Amino acid sequence: MKNYKIVIQYEGTRYNGWQRQGNTSNTIQGKFEDVLSKMAGKTVEINASGRTDAGVHARGQVANFKCAVDMTEDEIAEYLNHYLPKDIAVISIEEMPERFHARLNAKSKTYEYVICAKQKSDVFNRRTQYNIDEMPDIELMKEATKLLIGKHDFKGFSSVGRTKKSTVRTINSIDIEEKAGVITIRINGNGFLYNMVRIISGTLLEIGLRKREISCIEHIFESRDRTLAGDTLPAEGLALIEVLY
Amino acid sequence: MKNYKIVIQYEGTRYNGWQRQGNTSNTIQGKFEDVLSKMAGKTVEINASGRTDAGVHARGQVANFKCAVDMTEDEIAEYLNHYLPKDIAVISIEEMPERFHARLNAKSKTYEYVICAKQKSDVFNRRTQYNIDEMPDIELMKEATKLLIGKHDFKGFSSVGRTKKSTVRTINSIDIEEKAGVITIRINGNGFLYNMVRIISGTLLEIGLRKREISCIEHIFESRDRTLAGDTLPAEGLALIEVLY
Repeated sequence: MKNYKIVIQYEGTRYNGWQRQGNTSNTIQGKFEDVLSKMAGKTVEINASGRTDAGVHARGQVANFKCAVDMTEDEIAEYLNHYLPKDIAVISIEEMPERFHARLNAKSKTYEYVICAKQKSDVFNRRTQYNIDEMPDIELMKEATKLLIGKHDFKGFSSVGRTKKSTVRTINSIDIEEKAGVITIRINGNGFLYNMVRIISGTLLEIGLRKREISCIEHIFESRDRTLAGDTLPAEGLALIEVLY
Repeated sequence: MKNYKIVIQYEGTRYNGWQRQGNTSNTIQGKFEDVLSKMAGKTVEINASGRTDAGVHARGQVANFKCAVDMTEDEIAEYLNHYLPKDIAVISIEEMPERFHARLNAKSKTYEYVICAKQKSDVFNRRTQYNIDEMPDIELMKEATKLLIGKHDFKGFSSVGRTKKSTVRTINSIDIEEKAGVITIRINGNGFLYNMVRIISGTLLEIGLRKREISCIEHIFESRDRTLAGDTLPAEGLALIEVLY
């Protein structure tokens, strides 16, 4: 039994997210487990670094699975890419020590939220950008990121309900770049709560559009009150870019 | 009555090409004429610089239409972008002299054919790239382009049947670029016959893959025989990039 780490891409548009749900196979995990189990001749489970929600994309999701097959790593990648749908791809594959676990060993993750602030979004990128009419003030948004970086209780920036689990996370960096009307918010952190990147992006966007003050961030941290933060931006603009171990 | 020139983008994937065909409205022209006629309150016709075939994309198609509406150019563009499907967009609009005609006045056009020579195409670009397994020899392909440039009878590089019309065209330039496994063939010419860019790209690709010799090009010109040229590559890799006047 070998333990394989794979780096994968997917366009999440037509899937109900990563996580397999019962018998519905319209999830990325479902597609992988179907093909892996066919390859190995018995049930194979796959663990990702974390779930992505319905409609969210990945350019560098990481997952691991264990199986015993008489195939080289390249042959496994080729088999998967042959049988997986066209909107899912294996980028690289590597054998790892038995104890490697894609979720438990992840040190940090990088997400990108992409906003297109042109009259009409580029038709070729419309599935991976959130389209808005008005250009926000990028400098205001950058200024606001300073209050978000570091170790905080992000409950107010999440859709997590009542929980006894910790909602404290550390954001290492937030970079905002604007190029020809396309704004990319790049966030690296040690972990993310449910909807956290989309709510942080929504709050930053509303600050940039002068719909709220930068100081709201402190109130959201103090109150832990989701209703004080900005909108959850749509799934299509979000992509998991990289997982670091 | 004013004459408007528009520059447009479309992802051709789900359309039967540019040209309206009878009552089927699943063409780009059909979509435009429906929205324009609604806007003007009477039938409006639109002329493109040329047809694009089913599944072919455009990043800079040019078209013109005449209508009398009490709207600024920006308002017209906004109206069109609001009512057109998401995979069609107006990039710019400009009033022109009455005599301007998008097809008749076009001096040259640039097309790009994009081939992805990686094990699996980038999932995010799969609709706009033709995917192959093996990397062709780019230098051989570049060498071959020298024989294609200039004024020639391109009948053998087209799907044109028997015709009395001239099949002589001039290719001004062919640039081939390879970047991280993605090959772009960029062709500028004064006009193109049916399937000409896709057959030229298919012939160049087969030369790059050493399936045929560079010298075949001369035989195809001399014989005017389509069966001697390479495959017609699939529509998805082709895009009309720019039309010059």
